[in-house]
Amino acid sequence: SRNNEEPQYEELGRYGFPLTGAELRYYTNHTLSYDQAKRIPRWVAEHISSAKLLGKADRKHCKFKPDPSVPPLFTAVNEDYLHSGWSRGHMAPAGDNKYSEQSMAETFYLSNIVPQNIENNGGFWNRLEMYCRDLTKRFDDVWIITGPLVLPEVGADGSKTVSYKVIGKDDVAVPTHLYKVILVQRKQSSSEPLALGAFVAPNKPISFDHPLTEYQVSLQYLEKMSGLTFFPKLDKTQPVQNLCDADTCKLMDFQEFTLYITGRKVSSARTQPKLEKIMSELKESGIEPDDYLLRLYEEKKKELSSKAVLERKS
Amino acid sequence: SRNNEEPQYEELGRYGFPLTGAELRYYTNHTLSYDQAKRIPRWVAEHISSAKLLGKADRKHCKFKPDPSVPPLFTAVNEDYLHSGWSRGHMAPAGDNKYSEQSMAETFYLSNIVPQNIENNGGFWNRLEMYCRDLTKRFDDVWIITGPLVLPEVGADGSKTVSYKVIGKDDVAVPTHLYKVILVQRKQSSSEPLALGAFVAPNKPISFDHPLTEYQVSLQYLEKMSGLTFFPKLDKTQPVQNLCDADTCKLMDFQEFTLYITGRKVSSARTQPKLEKIMSELKESGIEPDDYLLRLYEEKKKELSSKAVLERKS
Ligand SMILES: [Mg+2]
Ligand SMILES: [Mg+2]
Repeated sequence: SRNNEEPQYEELGRYGFPLTGAELRYYTNHTLSYDQAKRIPRWVAEHISSAKLLGKADRKHCKFKPDPSVPPLFTAVNEDYLHSGWSRGHMAPAGDNKYSEQSMAETFYLSNIVPQNIENNGGFWNRLEMYCRDLTKRFDDVWIITGPLVLPEVGADGSKTVSYKVIGKDDVAVPTHLYKVILVQRKQSSSEPLALGAFVAPNKPISFDHPLTEYQVSLQYLEKMSGLTFFPKLDKTQPVQNLCDADTCKLMDFQEFTLYITGRKVSSARTQPKLEKIMSELKESGIEPDDYLLRLYEEKKKELSSKAVLERKS
Repeated sequence: SRNNEEPQYEELGRYGFPLTGAELRYYTNHTLSYDQAKRIPRWVAEHISSAKLLGKADRKHCKFKPDPSVPPLFTAVNEDYLHSGWSRGHMAPAGDNKYSEQSMAETFYLSNIVPQNIENNGGFWNRLEMYCRDLTKRFDDVWIITGPLVLPEVGADGSKTVSYKVIGKDDVAVPTHLYKVILVQRKQSSSEPLALGAFVAPNKPISFDHPLTEYQVSLQYLEKMSGLTFFPKLDKTQPVQNLCDADTCKLMDFQEFTLYITGRKVSSARTQPKLEKIMSELKESGIEPDDYLLRLYEEKKKELSSKAVLERKS
């Protein structure tokens, strides 16, 4: 009987069972499970709302660093990424944490980072993150789970192979793909069904002519390939809408994105010649500044010229 | 303060955090952690002793089958292995469970199995398992942790790549390597230090001219590559001997192994001509039967000839 066998468990466990380190790790505005063998997260979960996107926390004050809660044997370090050809890609984005210096700083722990293609990071993935933030205008609650995948490829002989690079002395795994699962709720009081979208995109440059919907997958496919069960407390007997029916699933196009990026450059310009160069580059690309960008430019010009006057006086 | 932030955890976790399925799974004589993405175990832990190796449980009565405790989306099935070119390799060996039909049957759950090169499975790895059982003659307690690894290879350009096959419709990962960690204790009452050995071998044929010591690695190396912490309750301030100093770490050589395998064939021979064929094959290989094998042969010959007499009578 089971009872007779219980002493064996005691024997078997006398020096402890292996620790996988897959337990939940809690941070101010995200939680994650870490992959100690790959030195990257398995998944990172966030909840965002319009309130959390307001504030002055600035990534200028943040530094990438090893997560102090990860054992040194299993952590990545900045040196693993430097000169590797791969950027440090946030899973929970810094930009989702404007409301708190602390929560933004925690997104720079390397437990929240994977080696990401730099164009993907600044381009397609950046636009996907902006789309997630935009959802907070239409939905009170937005849950986002982000993580890396290593997916098999079918060879000429029909056999399937998983193949991925590892970088640095810590062999940090470079995922072949990244995923995002997005769950939105209009209002907690509303009877409208929740909406969910799961997306898997390759970890490489993705140009503007690829719509987000091209990368949509079923939740079950993503669960099978990741080995994860998402939103286990979601009532599976209730209907859940497709996010791309309930909302647009439209990312910024080239023009919108260029205006957005130019706006950010204008805001951080430090001299008048720099400011003028940014605006002339925009002109060369054939995109007309919109009213918002023109206002930003005028304000910045005023700020820099009064600064210049002050400097000449001193 | 933390207190002010607690409501965010409630929001963040409203529909539950992703489940990794890495929790401990308990069986009659082993425990394991399952890898839901790879459809193979991460590690399997056993405790063996001379008493557990006595008994009549027979693998003839066992069948490989999906582990009923693993969610169907994440389990391997026999069809994934069939015609794949890979054998179903036990991590906790069936042969460590002679004392219990139940515990032996549980080692045939696919949660305890990885795709293993068939020659490795029947050869080098089989001999390593026999060495582990042999340790119970000299040590009261033997703990063994066995599992798969996927290790990077360095390319011509110096970059490192992890590459492994996946098989079947469930994409079951074929490990590039297998590991074993062996911890032995002379007697629970003894003051002699424990001894430990960690081994990593490629998942391919390994011939008799490769000694076990060739595959010994430091525990820290194995921990780093597997992402696991082994024997976390072991008092790290106490000395631990190298298993290969405290014991031989010598596997059966070709002659011993051939005699052993011939003995098993003799024991299961069903007819007199089959029995004679087994013995003449041994002769052809140039190996002299030892006394034990000759005794087995004589007993079997008697058994089969009285069976033949009975059959002629009926
Ligand atoms: Mg990014
Ligand atoms: Mg085997």
